[in-house]
Order: sequence, then structure tokens, then C-alpha cells
Amino acid sequence: MVGKKERQVTAALVVIGDEILSGRTRDANLAYLATWLNARGIGLGEARIVPDRMAAIIEAVNALRARFDYVFTTGGIGPTHDDITAQAIADAFGVPLEEHPDAIALLSAHYPPGGLTPARRRMARVPKGGTLIDNPVSIAPGFQIGNVFVLAGVPEIMRVMLDSLAHRLVGGAPMQAATLEIPMPESAFAEPLAEIAAARPAVAIGSYPYYRKGRPGIHVVVRATDPAAITDAIDAVAAAARKMGVEPLGEGQKDDTAED
Amino acid sequence: MVGKKERQVTAALVVIGDEILSGRTRDANLAYLATWLNARGIGLGEARIVPDRMAAIIEAVNALRARFDYVFTTGGIGPTHDDITAQAIADAFGVPLEEHPDAIALLSAHYPPGGLTPARRRMARVPKGGTLIDNPVSIAPGFQIGNVFVLAGVPEIMRVMLDSLAHRLVGGAPMQAATLEIPMPESAFAEPLAEIAAARPAVAIGSYPYYRKGRPGIHVVVRATDPAAITDAIDAVAAAARKMGVEPLGEGQKDDTAED
Repeated sequence: MVGKKERQVTAALVVIGDEILSGRTRDANLAYLATWLNARGIGLGEARIVPDRMAAIIEAVNALRARFDYVFTTGGIGPTHDDITAQAIADAFGVPLEEHPDAIALLSAHYPPGGLTPARRRMARVPKGGTLIDNPVSIAPGFQIGNVFVLAGVPEIMRVMLDSLAHRLVGGAPMQAATLEIPMPESAFAEPLAEIAAARPAVAIGSYPYYRKGRPGIHVVVRATDPAAITDAIDAVAAAARKMGVEPLGEGQKDDTAED
Repeated sequence: MVGKKERQVTAALVVIGDEILSGRTRDANLAYLATWLNARGIGLGEARIVPDRMAAIIEAVNALRARFDYVFTTGGIGPTHDDITAQAIADAFGVPLEEHPDAIALLSAHYPPGGLTPARRRMARVPKGGTLIDNPVSIAPGFQIGNVFVLAGVPEIMRVMLDSLAHRLVGGAPMQAATLEIPMPESAFAEPLAEIAAARPAVAIGSYPYYRKGRPGIHVVVRATDPAAITDAIDAVAAAARKMGVEPLGEGQKDDTAED
């Protein structure tokens, strides 16, 4: 029951972008970040998706940076008029937004002579006190200020920025998970599952129903930092299913979207 | 410029579920809801993804229901121990959670005699004053209280519940959109685009870079309630590209995830 006593290291994500809220683009960064953080012993505790509007970004970042160990933002750091994240973060911290000399140097070296236009210079602006996050893909950097990490929205760039900043994070024991598939209706298994969960406060037990060819079943997901606690809970779930005459099917699929 | 003067009708979404925040499951409801609302003249203004924890759900719902015309929640209304949404909504409104007689009747008729177990009865609990939202797929209803609509997380069920509640919503003029693809680097087109956007406050102009076979380009997305305003902005964008010697490519793909 190691997981109970250790403080969990937590993070939050702010996805910035009208195109996600309009339904035009499906966010691809949340699931990637969640998995990436989990592997480092950091739990994603909340995510907010906000429009390209200063007040909305400022409010979300200030609410979350006070409450979580780390905050990540994605989107809005490009060269165009709708890229307002850097200014919003500066305002959230109450500091001026300034051209960072290292970012100017990186961009100057990247573009041909005379190519560092005013629009491109926008991508060198960092809130005073911020440090750069390398972007080996397209050069224009992200930045960190306090516990807030400001990343690109393009998934390929967001991912290399995470690799660039990984050494700055301090995580806890990684959360581990195991899944058992039980081919019976969720409501029939709810009571034994509730008893198993109540007796094991150090593990998180989730129940996710699915339908396959018209037949209902459940994926029971057990999460904890202690592998022994996971094994104990999975064994208890399997035993409860067998007691009801149902043989568990082992690891289920990881990509289903069913939940109610 | 009709869009400028009309008050936009707005909504927010609270996605409830540890499995989204752990990265195990990718949310499929946000993009669907956003598109569905847009068609009814309701703009999705913010989304929050919160864990299966009472305090987190209560805080998100209370913050958003005060600020948006409508709030939708998905997830956590099933029969198992981790389904705590109904209790959280009751607490958010400061009312007791009660078995709704119509929900009991629906579930009693659905299950075989004696099949309405305590776990299944949980799915009939509604905050006092709430009204049911029909679920033709799996019977267990959602509910509405005040301006908050509580829906299942399973996408197929969430969607039929939306159809069931559609008549309760009052929207404005639907937001319309058009996309133009410009095959040049975003940073090269940023300045003309900023001028076009600044001169047209009634339209929202977004710039979304992409790379295709190593060549950069932009999708320029223009959104407004007034079709004439969209045409005007698209024409201005196309003219600016041509002035720079680049022929726009017309409607771009709708499913890319690129943004920075």
C-alpha cells in the first residue's frame, strides 16, 4: 500500500484553441501527455480546453498553477494574430513579455538573412523570467515560467518539446495499471466490485462497460503505484467473477471509448 | 455583420472520468457535442475534464453553470461505485438526491422481475427538481437540473440523449465556417492575415499550419454567423495570397490536428 502514503505528483493541462472547441480538430495531445506523465510518476489531474481569448487563458492558468505541481499548455504560440498564449501567460504572471535573446539567436540562424520578419519575431517573445524549451523540429521554442510549461499545439512539436523539458520534472512512483475483461453486464457486477474497491483504498478501480456483437461486458481497470496491490485487486475481481460463474478474459483492449 | 450584435448562446462541457485523464480512453464526445451545438447556434465556450472525484465535479459544474447558458456533463452515471456524477450534481445544487419514480418505472419495465437490484436502482437517482432525459438505447436515463444536462459517457448513448433533449435548448444563429488552404509557411502569411482579421471583428479567423510531404501550408478557417461576412473574409484571404504569388487551394481537410 505504498501508493497511499506517498504524495502523488500532479499536473494539469490547458488546451488553447478555438479549433478544438468548434469541433473542427480533435485534440491529440491530452492522451499523449497523460501517458507520458504517468510513466514519470506524475498524474494528470485536470484538463481544460479554452478558446483563443486572453481572459479565458489567464483564468485557467492561474487557477491550475496554484493547485497542481505542474501545468502544461498547448497551442497558440505560432506567428499569427490568433497566437496569444505568450501574452496571456505573461499577464497571468504579471510580468512583461519580452524578446528572449536566445530565441532571437535561434530564429535568426534558422531563417535566411532578412527572414526574421516581425511575425516571426513574435515567436521569440517570452514572459520575463521564463526559460526556453527546445524545439528541434521547427526551432521556434516553447518556454517555462514558474511551474507552467508552454508548448506548441502541433502534436509532433509538442512531443519533442516534452522530451526537451523532461529533465526539469520531478515525479513520484509511476502509476501502474492492469485490466481484466469480465463478460457480464456492468450492473450485474456492480455490487461485488464496490465491495472489492471499498476494501482497497490504495487502488483506483474503474468499471468501463462495452458492447461487442450485442453482448455486454466490462473492462475493470485497476490502478496503483504498488504492483502487489494491483495483483491483489485483480485476483479479487477474478475470484468474484468466477463465483458468479463467469470466467474473466484477461487484458482487454486499451482503445475503447465506452463508459457510462 | 449580424454576428457582432446578436448575443451568442454558449455552452460548456464537463467530461467526467479518470479513464480520460489517465490516457487510457480518448474522449469522443467533445467534438461531437461541439458540432451538434454549432448546428443549433450554440457555441461551445469551454470544456473541462475532471476525475471521478466529488469536489472536482462540483467545482467545475458550479463554475461553468454560472457563466454559460448551458452545461453538459458526460460520464459517471452508471451503476458502479465509481459512478458519482448524480450525487455530485445534487451537491452542486444543494438539493437531495432522490429516486425518480418515472426512472424506477422505466428500469422496472426493462429488467426481468426481481432484476432491479440495488446497483441498478442507483441509475434512477436524480437531484430533487431534476427532469429525466430519455435513453432509448439502454433505458437508464440522463437528467436535467437548471441549465445542466447530465449525460452518459458512452458515445452512442450520449448522442441519443442529445436528440432527446434537443427541444429544450434555445440557440441563436448557427455559426458557419469556411476553410481556405494556402500552400505557404504560416509565418510568411501572418502579417496580411492579421490585417484582414483586424478589419473584420465580426468574423473569427484562425490559422492552422500543416506539413504535407515536408511542405508547409496553412488552413485558414473563417467563422461567423453571417454567410456574407464569411465570403468577404475568404475573398480577402484569397486575394492576399494571390498578391504574394500563391494560388489558394480551396476547402482543406477537416480532420487535421495541426496547430501551433
